[in-house]
Amino acid sequence: MSYKYVYLFSEGNGSMRELLGGKGANLAEMTNLGMPVPQGFTVTTEACTKYYEDGRQINAEIEAEIYEYLAKMEQICGKKFGDVKNPLLVSVRSGARASMPGMMDTILNLGLNDTVVEGLAELTGNPRFAYDSYRRFIQMFSDVVMEVPKKNFEVIIDELKEKKGVKLDTELDVNDMKELVKLFKAYYKEQKGVDFPTEPKEQLLEAVKAVFRSWDNPRAIVYRRMNDIPSSWGTAVNVQSMVFGNMGDDSGTGVAFTRNPSTGEKKLYGEFLMNAQGEDVVAGIRTPQSIDQLREVMPAVYDQFAKIAQTLEDHYRDMQDMEFTIEKGKLYMLQTRNGKRTAAAALKIAVDLVEEKMLTKEEAILKVEPKQLDSLLHPQFDAAALKKATPIAKGLPASPGAACGKVYFTAEEAVAAAEAGNKVVLVRLETSPEDIEGMYASQGILTVRGGMTSHAAVVARGMGTCCVAGCGEIVMHEEEKYFEVAGKTIREGDYISIDGSTGNIYGEAIDTVEAGISGDFETFMNWADEIRTLKVRTNADTPHDAEIAYKFGAEGIGLTRTEHMFFDADRIPAMREMIVSDTLEQRQKALAKLLPMQRSDFEGIFKAMHGYGVTIRFLDPPLHEFLPHTKEDIEALAKEMGMTYDKLKEKIDSLHEFNPMLGHRGCRLAVTFPEIAEMQTRAVIEAAINVNKEGMNVVPEIMIPLVGDVKELAFVKNIVTTTADSIIKEAGVELKYMVGTMIEVPRAAVTADEIAKEAEFFSFGTNDLTQMGYGFSRDDAGKFLGDYYDKKIFESDPFAKLDQDGIGKLVKMAVELGRKTRPDIKLGICGEHGGDPSTVEFCHNIGLTYVSCSPFRVPIARLAAAQAKVKEGK
Amino acid sequence: MSYKYVYLFSEGNGSMRELLGGKGANLAEMTNLGMPVPQGFTVTTEACTKYYEDGRQINAEIEAEIYEYLAKMEQICGKKFGDVKNPLLVSVRSGARASMPGMMDTILNLGLNDTVVEGLAELTGNPRFAYDSYRRFIQMFSDVVMEVPKKNFEVIIDELKEKKGVKLDTELDVNDMKELVKLFKAYYKEQKGVDFPTEPKEQLLEAVKAVFRSWDNPRAIVYRRMNDIPSSWGTAVNVQSMVFGNMGDDSGTGVAFTRNPSTGEKKLYGEFLMNAQGEDVVAGIRTPQSIDQLREVMPAVYDQFAKIAQTLEDHYRDMQDMEFTIEKGKLYMLQTRNGKRTAAAALKIAVDLVEEKMLTKEEAILKVEPKQLDSLLHPQFDAAALKKATPIAKGLPASPGAACGKVYFTAEEAVAAAEAGNKVVLVRLETSPEDIEGMYASQGILTVRGGMTSHAAVVARGMGTCCVAGCGEIVMHEEEKYFEVAGKTIREGDYISIDGSTGNIYGEAIDTVEAGISGDFETFMNWADEIRTLKVRTNADTPHDAEIAYKFGAEGIGLTRTEHMFFDADRIPAMREMIVSDTLEQRQKALAKLLPMQRSDFEGIFKAMHGYGVTIRFLDPPLHEFLPHTKEDIEALAKEMGMTYDKLKEKIDSLHEFNPMLGHRGCRLAVTFPEIAEMQTRAVIEAAINVNKEGMNVVPEIMIPLVGDVKELAFVKNIVTTTADSIIKEAGVELKYMVGTMIEVPRAAVTADEIAKEAEFFSFGTNDLTQMGYGFSRDDAGKFLGDYYDKKIFESDPFAKLDQDGIGKLVKMAVELGRKTRPDIKLGICGEHGGDPSTVEFCHNIGLTYVSCSPFRVPIARLAAAQAKVKEGK
Repeated sequence: MSYKYVYLFSEGNGSMRELLGGKGANLAEMTNLGMPVPQGFTVTTEACTKYYEDGRQINAEIEAEIYEYLAKMEQICGKKFGDVKNPLLVSVRSGARASMPGMMDTILNLGLNDTVVEGLAELTGNPRFAYDSYRRFIQMFSDVVMEVPKKNFEVIIDELKEKKGVKLDTELDVNDMKELVKLFKAYYKEQKGVDFPTEPKEQLLEAVKAVFRSWDNPRAIVYRRMNDIPSSWGTAVNVQSMVFGNMGDDSGTGVAFTRNPSTGEKKLYGEFLMNAQGEDVVAGIRTPQSIDQLREVMPAVYDQFAKIAQTLEDHYRDMQDMEFTIEKGKLYMLQTRNGKRTAAAALKIAVDLVEEKMLTKEEAILKVEPKQLDSLLHPQFDAAALKKATPIAKGLPASPGAACGKVYFTAEEAVAAAEAGNKVVLVRLETSPEDIEGMYASQGILTVRGGMTSHAAVVARGMGTCCVAGCGEIVMHEEEKYFEVAGKTIREGDYISIDGSTGNIYGEAIDTVEAGISGDFETFMNWADEIRTLKVRTNADTPHDAEIAYKFGAEGIGLTRTEHMFFDADRIPAMREMIVSDTLEQRQKALAKLLPMQRSDFEGIFKAMHGYGVTIRFLDPPLHEFLPHTKEDIEALAKEMGMTYDKLKEKIDSLHEFNPMLGHRGCRLAVTFPEIAEMQTRAVIEAAINVNKEGMNVVPEIMIPLVGDVKELAFVKNIVTTTADSIIKEAGVELKYMVGTMIEVPRAAVTADEIAKEAEFFSFGTNDLTQMGYGFSRDDAGKFLGDYYDKKIFESDPFAKLDQDGIGKLVKMAVELGRKTRPDIKLGICGEHGGDPSTVEFCHNIGLTYVSCSPFRVPIARLAAAQAKVKEGK
Repeated sequence: MSYKYVYLFSEGNGSMRELLGGKGANLAEMTNLGMPVPQGFTVTTEACTKYYEDGRQINAEIEAEIYEYLAKMEQICGKKFGDVKNPLLVSVRSGARASMPGMMDTILNLGLNDTVVEGLAELTGNPRFAYDSYRRFIQMFSDVVMEVPKKNFEVIIDELKEKKGVKLDTELDVNDMKELVKLFKAYYKEQKGVDFPTEPKEQLLEAVKAVFRSWDNPRAIVYRRMNDIPSSWGTAVNVQSMVFGNMGDDSGTGVAFTRNPSTGEKKLYGEFLMNAQGEDVVAGIRTPQSIDQLREVMPAVYDQFAKIAQTLEDHYRDMQDMEFTIEKGKLYMLQTRNGKRTAAAALKIAVDLVEEKMLTKEEAILKVEPKQLDSLLHPQFDAAALKKATPIAKGLPASPGAACGKVYFTAEEAVAAAEAGNKVVLVRLETSPEDIEGMYASQGILTVRGGMTSHAAVVARGMGTCCVAGCGEIVMHEEEKYFEVAGKTIREGDYISIDGSTGNIYGEAIDTVEAGISGDFETFMNWADEIRTLKVRTNADTPHDAEIAYKFGAEGIGLTRTEHMFFDADRIPAMREMIVSDTLEQRQKALAKLLPMQRSDFEGIFKAMHGYGVTIRFLDPPLHEFLPHTKEDIEALAKEMGMTYDKLKEKIDSLHEFNPMLGHRGCRLAVTFPEIAEMQTRAVIEAAINVNKEGMNVVPEIMIPLVGDVKELAFVKNIVTTTADSIIKEAGVELKYMVGTMIEVPRAAVTADEIAKEAEFFSFGTNDLTQMGYGFSRDDAGKFLGDYYDKKIFESDPFAKLDQDGIGKLVKMAVELGRKTRPDIKLGICGEHGGDPSTVEFCHNIGLTYVSCSPFRVPIARLAAAQAKVKEGK
């Protein structure tokens, strides 16, 4: 069977975006709707895939089909490719399934050569236009197809203008244009060693190849990774008859939205330029006019356009982003697509479209990208103040939001300054667990080293604190308490501002405004809650985090990491005392000091959650994480502990691990030191008893981490139930509690039927499951993940987006096995993936009870859960 | 339903070992066969399990049942428990399903107290015997039941002997025995605060409890772990009417085998002591007589015994190990069981039994424990070196093989020295169960006391460790850590050599050489090869290892670790040069130096394997493993490399990993540095072309390690095939090769269907799969595995015996998924588990093509594979 790789616009339709790409499908749809579209054809995304399969070449079959459709197009347009008398000129544009703005490259005026240009000049009676078009084509083709940079041609233009003593391109006359064509062709030959291709068909085939090639350029790869677009999709190529907005004052070109993409206001919004080609609008050399003014300039054209716009919005039932050209007073539609919009606009448009009865609530829910909500949940810079500021440096946008505060260089000083009422930005070379309190006390965190998954980035995202990481331009003088960047010196106590959404760093104070959920946002989120069935919990280690999450709609806590509580300055001594103990008695004594602190934390968290379920994970990290490592710190601790330096050093050394990730942690700690689990059980149960006395009805969920074998869980569970039951009995109260486990070790996933015999709930720790399932630790994977993206082995970060094919398969297996043993088992996910929309959808589809994510991602997860439900119904 | 927890010997039979334990089942079977067995009853293993379920107590139901059966036993024996006139005395012995020699505790003469002893004296007319029995009972009961150490009582005896000026126990008279009873009881009261229990029923119940308890003592746990015995089995308790071998010169006791347990020779083999109780034989205080001599001493008894022995062997169709007692000229059988034997004896017996038509080949195959073969595969003394050496002493040849090592005098020091990398010979007065771990850690064991059936001898044979026992010439100074023999003084750390086949002891180090397969061993292994369907390959990194393995029957190489080749002193410089390279060109230059070395290694390995398949794994460990870490070494290397110290240090630091196990290694190296895979491909393919030119027909198998995602494999495979195909084309030859992967990452196991699209074979790397599947690294797990064994979360070392329930499930899943995609996929295992018999059986059952193990385990795996096939047919 001969395969069809090319479609006329009149052969396709709007539903064919997988095959024709978004642009091609919409051109076909507009053609079907009888709108004025310059005709042409689309080379399919499958042709692109074939191009890569064939080792980056267009095979003879596809080439022949392209020429066949070129002939059909000539017939439709009544023009001929390469014909001097009546030349067909075309644009060649990429168009992938998903919109990838700015990622792909465009060529206009293709089909021109030394003879055709003369024909065009004659036909239009405008030789300057003809030669201007020709030189633009040479420039674009050279740049896009042959990798001779466009800007080198601009230099040639500038030289000519200087020589002629003029400033504007428009001041160049027809002879100048002819001269430029000559100079461009000469430069091309100098660069490439061959003449500029004069055969239009050759130009066309090279241009198609260039579009295919551009699918794989580094910008495209990065864009796809950030937007979860698989590289297997490929791009289509649209070959369209040229229309010219630069044919005189009755010609023009423009872009417009059916609603305001910033605010969502229902009003045509856009701009146009008379006597210009599309690139002139984008380039911003001349200032375009507002679309309103078109009504005055060309009233009939405006009315026609406004009507088309309304038709398109009604047809697509979404805000449209359109391109048009006016050639000698006649309107042509070059593109329409669902328009990109800000989060605020997206919410307003979604709510308005429901009110206008254009969409159902379920349909509206799908119109907002969950990740977009993030920008509405964090403090932002005051827009007016931001306009006046200039960044002094840029790091990685590691955790969104805006922060402004005084610079401090150590966690202790940050805490002290915050306690004294200052807003603080903590600036560190890189952060470590000891900095937690300082990070909590700060409005924002700035690090010199570390990537998007560095300690600072991960912790900051978890806390919802703004963070800019890895700003390598900064020269740090930590000891001397200042840093230098861009010729500026910033000292302790100086104000800076950082933007965690852009990575920008400002050497001054910029006012911020707080976020909240109200208005359209609130309406919209209520709809999401009505629709979704998947519950959304939060990961919160403190009453403060729990309160934020509750405000953002969290329905319980899926993960409270008890160890974070131990890093506090007033707690870590007891923790360390416990760790360096030689005997059970010493350990119990130290644990007794920690008990009241833990208990009061739990009381606070229970209260903040207003009776929703709270899952508390028992101590997880290896003990050495709590001990100091530098000589000075060890000396100080030894003194504090009344130990010799040598003894303490020996203890610390004995805790050293080759692979801490795979070491003595999680439930293994409770196996070795049951007294830790006893103390933690006591703290949880006593706290629950205390708050229930105040009228709450808390059912605490105790979660045992890192279980790989049901016997581990049975052992620790026995400690928990023995302790809990005796406390409850002693208190003479009724208290229900649950004991469950993390599923984060691959063996636990495949033996989940056994584990469910002991576990009343599972919570999938997909961070560790990803690390162990793939066999790479997050701390080390940074070294090679770059290579993996470059070589297209990975297309997204497996720590941000759950790998559904492999790690997800383990999760799915565990869900099925767990349910087989215990049909009513409660199932959740508490890895960082819990706030990733695609993972939320996966969790909905495999039937989890809830997802749990950091407080600031709760609304995102709520929306993603609603979308998953709607999609499921489709 | 009331459950039956107790069986009379006459109620059971030989097939009931799960319920009655081995000893109980065989006592029942002998009773059924009409043999002279002192009657009694067995408390079942289920009672033991119940005891633990009930929180370590015997419930009322079981207690009542024991007393009920005690009454039945009284009736059968015509004696009464606690009756002064006609007292029933019993022995209480443990008996688990599997034989656990020396692990469990025995109490004799139970039923004695201050009044009964008088009756016994009267009844036997032998008051000294009665009181001797009584003091022995007190001693044993106190030790076993009440944890008052036996040796403390020995001190009391020694004091009395000193006071009386005598040397031997036999020189103590009846009054001395009475005195000892008084002293013992006083000491008991002093230690325990209560009187020694005088109520026989109380004694019995306490003794039964003690046996149950002893199932869980640390020695038993260690023994079970080393022998793969689940703790859930429990032990039975045998309560048997006492017969006395110490009633005078017409009494005696002994042990015997139906064939020689050292050589397999078909001839009664054993020893006996007249006028003695069983413990006297085992303790080795008096030197026993050979069983042959019994023919002269008591001809009728000998004939009866010989006939019984033959009947038992015919009945069980296996060599029997029997205990007997002669009481006043009458023979009693106390035990029979399949006898432990040396590997050589096991092979001879198996071959002989087939020739005697007693067994089929398939049955014979099951008679040899695969792990036992180990002892035949380990070094023997170099004949030339041995000729020059003169023994300094001679002991009993208790367990064959040769050993050379440094002398240590305690189990702890032996373990420590072995862990420090020393070869060790453990020298003890006599060994006890506490020494088990030290015995495992040693190359050889030498004891001063004890015979061929002493603890040391039995255990050493079981382990296949060389042992010379009962070398009475040695004068021991254990405390001072030296011994004297033949005028020589041997101190801790000095080298000695011992020959477990001759009993010779040498005061010097003697070189050892490897063993071969011939005679019965060869016959037997040929049968195994005829039977088995699972292939056996070897893990070998050098031509030398490959040659040994080929000699031991390996049918190819399942794993050649190429990195081991890079650690050679003459190669590591080029490797390091490669690692510290900054550019591709530098790296290629260094790799070019490594190419000829690798190629020649591969040529050697291909030749050593005579055309069998050879799987070569590409570079696996993280690169930092090849670099130095101390300041001096780094300085030296920097000088050698012509780099500054700082630059090299920086490079080394940049390669640091938090979790090297989960870092930049395996196929990830080839993704980052494709040139390494190119070089290795070139080395493999060129080597194959070269040896094939010499007439071989090698089809190399290139194995990509640590694949987790099919795309990783596809990427590296593309490098391999591109390189290989161009070399083959250039050489103008025909060469087949295969590309496959390790399955050692959990994700690879669950996505094996995808991976099989690219992989022509899988090799399961169960070491890493265990580490990642469980989430603990072998290097770190040592810290907590001890707790896991103590708390019975683990019963065996998951790195030695594959965890079939979890990690094995991943393997099984991968097998099924892999076959679904590629039905003819070649499947093997190359983790260390490949030589473990239980894992080999698992591999056979899930349908692997081959197992691969270290050269010395190849015969073990061949036998285990044959056994798996035979068992499958059952």
